[in-house]
Order: sequence, then C-alpha cells, then structure tokens
Amino acid sequence: MKIITTKAELQELTLSLKQQKTIGFVPTMGYLHEGHRALLKEARKENDILILSVFVNPLQFGPNEDLESYPRDIEQDKLTAKNEGVDYLFMPSTEEMYPSTPSVTVHVQKRADVLCGRTRPGHFDGVATVLTKLFHLVQPDNVYFGKKDAQQVAVVDGLIKDFHFPITLHAVQTVREEDGLAKSSRNVKLSPEERQEAGILYQTLSMAREELIKGNHDIRAITDSLRKRLETITSGKVDYLEILTYPELQEPIHWEGTLIIAVAVRFTNARLIDNIIFDLHEMVIGKGASTCSEQ
Amino acid sequence: MKIITTKAELQELTLSLKQQKTIGFVPTMGYLHEGHRALLKEARKENDILILSVFVNPLQFGPNEDLESYPRDIEQDKLTAKNEGVDYLFMPSTEEMYPSTPSVTVHVQKRADVLCGRTRPGHFDGVATVLTKLFHLVQPDNVYFGKKDAQQVAVVDGLIKDFHFPITLHAVQTVREEDGLAKSSRNVKLSPEERQEAGILYQTLSMAREELIKGNHDIRAITDSLRKRLETITSGKVDYLEILTYPELQEPIHWEGTLIIAVAVRFTNARLIDNIIFDLHEMVIGKGASTCSEQ
Repeated sequence: MKIITTKAELQELTLSLKQQKTIGFVPTMGYLHEGHRALLKEARKENDILILSVFVNPLQFGPNEDLESYPRDIEQDKLTAKNEGVDYLFMPSTEEMYPSTPSVTVHVQKRADVLCGRTRPGHFDGVATVLTKLFHLVQPDNVYFGKKDAQQVAVVDGLIKDFHFPITLHAVQTVREEDGLAKSSRNVKLSPEERQEAGILYQTLSMAREELIKGNHDIRAITDSLRKRLETITSGKVDYLEILTYPELQEPIHWEGTLIIAVAVRFTNARLIDNIIFDLHEMVIGKGASTCSEQ
Repeated sequence: MKIITTKAELQELTLSLKQQKTIGFVPTMGYLHEGHRALLKEARKENDILILSVFVNPLQFGPNEDLESYPRDIEQDKLTAKNEGVDYLFMPSTEEMYPSTPSVTVHVQKRADVLCGRTRPGHFDGVATVLTKLFHLVQPDNVYFGKKDAQQVAVVDGLIKDFHFPITLHAVQTVREEDGLAKSSRNVKLSPEERQEAGILYQTLSMAREELIKGNHDIRAITDSLRKRLETITSGKVDYLEILTYPELQEPIHWEGTLIIAVAVRFTNARLIDNIIFDLHEMVIGKGASTCSEQ
C-alpha cells in the first residue's frame, strides 16, 4: 500500500492507471470501523485498483459542530487500510485540499432541507464540494458509501447524476452492533450509560416499519408516539424522526416505492443517526426479506 | 462531422475516444462569429478530436435578461462548425440538459461580485454549473474561451483549479472589427447608429491603458472622466468601467503584474462588454508589445 498526500501525485497516478484499470474509491473521514471495512471489502472485490481517502473535511462542519473533537487515529487507519487490501491511501492535509478560501463550491438544491440538512445548514454543500474535488483527483469508476448516511447517499446520487460524473454509486448496507446500534466513528463519544441506551434507535426504526407494514399511514401519529418513547427511555434529545420517500426525501403521498425511516438523537457528546430503507410494496406482498434486512 | 443531441451518446463516445486521443472543446451559445472561429482554429490545431457545443444555457440568464431574444442560427452554426473541422457538434435541447430543476449547482465564491457579476447575480453560477456538466460529458483535455469574456475566463480558471478538473484552459485573443469593436453575437442587436458609436468602447479602454502606462494610478479619476466621455459621445449607458488585477479581479494595490480594464455599456437592445488585459511591468519597461496587442 502506498500513502499519498498531495493532489498532484494522486491525479497523475489515477489518470495513468485509468487507461487500463477500473478504480474503486471509498471516501472517508477516517477512524475506520467495521462499516468502512464493509465498503472496502465490496470495493476490493469489484475493482482492479482500490483507493481510500481519509480526510476530515472542515467544509462540512458547522461553526458549532465537532470538527476539533472528531475522532482521529491515523496509525490504526493505515493498518485497517492495509488489511483490507487498499492500494493507495490518500491522506491530504487541510492546506493541501483548501490552500485558500474556495473559489467555487457545490450548492445542493434538493434533498438537503430535510433530516440532517435541516439542522446542519451548509453540511451537504460541504460534502458535495469535497466529493467533487476528490472525484476529479481519484477518477473512480465506482464509489462506495454506507447506507447509514442515507441522506448523504441521496445527495451523492443527485450530484453524480446531475453533473454527469461517469461514476457508479454503490450504497452498502449498514453494519450494526449486536443490539442494533449502527457502527459509527462517533459511538466512542457515548458515555457507558448512553451506549446502553443507544440500541433503542434501531428498535424505534423497526417499530415504525412495523406500523407502516400494518398499513398505518398516519405518519404524524407514528413519529410523535415513537419520538416520545425515545425521549422517555433514553437521555437523548430527538433531532428528528421522519418518514420520507427515498431517494427523493419527500413526504409519501402514493404509499408505494421505497421509503426511509430516519432518526437523529443528540447525546451529551455525540449526535447519532440511523435509518431503515425499505420497499413498501415488497413488504406488503411479503417478498422483500433481502431488500429489507438491515443486518 | 457528426451531430449529437443526447448526453448519453456524447459521454459514451468521449469516454471511449479519451483512451487514445486528445479532446479539444469549445463550449458556446451559438450564433458563431469570427471570435468563435478563432477558438475553433486554435483547438483544431492542438487536439486529435474537436468538439463544439451549441447550447443557450437558461441557467446563466437572469429573469429580465435576453434569453428569449438571444440570437440563434442553427443552420449557419452547423456550416461554420463543418468549415472549421469540428468532429462532433453537441446541440442538446434544454430538456436534455435540465430534465428537472437541478439537484446541485456550482456557486462561484470569488471573482463573481465585480464587473458583470455585480449586475448579473447568479450569472456565473449558471456558467460554472453548465460547464461542470459539459466538462463531464465531453471529457476534454483542453478547453478554449475568448478573452472578450475576461471575467468568465477568470471564473473558469477558478473552477478548473479549485475542483481539480484535469483540463487545460486556453484563453484566446479577442477578435475585433476594423473600428475596434469586439466581435459578439449581440452586435446584430445594435441599431445602425449604435453600431457606429460602438467602436468607442475599445477606444476608451485604450485611453485608460495609456493613462496607466504614463504612471497615473488614480483609478477613480481615470474611470470617472472616461465614463463621462463615453456617455457624452454615445447613446449608451455605462454599466461599469473598472480597472482590476487579473485574474483575481481585485483592486490594484502594488501596481505590478497583470491588470484588466473592463467596460460594459447598455444600448437599446444589447449590452456590450469589452476589455484589455495587459502586464503593467512589461508595458512600463517597454517590452510588452505582443502581450498587450488586442488585435
């Protein structure tokens, strides 16, 4: 595995590799866990060359967010990358990626004003901007994102399609702890008590799914009662609990196609998100097991 | 010459061409004149494949601007393209380029709030957005723009560098009529009287340059007096007459490096722009003839 820290070296390499080989790309902010490893494993299987980037992107953090305290462990990340068969690990400095204030940024017009976008203004602009830069540097044929960040997947889907990047997007199933908690770099910031409570996020999502499958379409009633339950059982504060179409992220009207149930809960030092994406039609007629499993 | 109207056909073609050949790209809004032909000739010399796009981009027109009346002559454009050795002419419909409201757009953060950007809010966002789309569809090695739209060149320079497009930008000298008027698709919208007056734009720019070369650094005095002169001699209304550093488009402080003198004048049915870009140091020490010539 080769470590690259400059844009110029990376792009020179990828432009020459691209002539002959397929390139798979996993962009991350590091502190790699099992969820990232699932992305790397899938990318490793499907591409000649596997490139991983580790870059904590300041542009996607708001002024009061956890940029400074975002967990980092570069040595461990290098080891994980090596073990997962990464060919090139791109770890640029902030100065390398943003030598001065950006001249141009990407503005996300759709799918950004709900869920996390509602309380994190500018977050998805920052995500789309750094990905546009990275996609040009890495020249990937395939990119891999985790379904845990489902809104991010929806935004990247819009970015790739609307800007006509010649890239295929792969959304990889969320990896969970035994109690259902989605793996996340931010889980280390939970207190032991909060960690015990955190399994309830996935339980809540599953309960909402059951209601929808039973034919209950009263979204307000479902989310209100589950939000109350969450805030009663845990010490967390619910940022949102929403049921939307996916990937459009709009209010369901016709009750067909794919839905997302998504939740965000604020604990003392960490804000956790999770979701279930499932095909309503397949659930109703009972053949959706593989689509719907989140395990 | 082959005419292509769909994104899918174009990108499939360019991705396969790119393996072996260099691609030169001239993006235009059509109604091609000698200025465009100069771009095509330079691109033809320097690339294996020459691609021209003709697309009047609604995203870069403001609500009160001349989108509807922007001059179009598709048959003449096809002839010009053929004569200049274009290999592929991309002429998409508006629906092909924007099947729905864009999910993502490019926002230009720098170099956009002066000159034309001041009176055309969102204009350069529209330019940068359509170029990002076209660059991915065309996969060019080299792109060609006219220096007449100097602010556009500065913005595209920022777009390519900041987003790390693997593309080289070529800025091609402005082509002028005998009286100095810069060739432009909008010149046909001048009345005969306005056309007679319009040569004064270039004369004005040249006079400003003379003042700067003489060592006069009082920008306010130079532009105020020349603006008055322009509005006295012509029936046009001066939108701006500015002297800035280039390509940063900031107020000159150190009086070295490259400067732009730029003007925009509103006539009855057309708003004309023009500029001179020159290296102050080379002018002062008297070896700048080739850099400074605008002919």
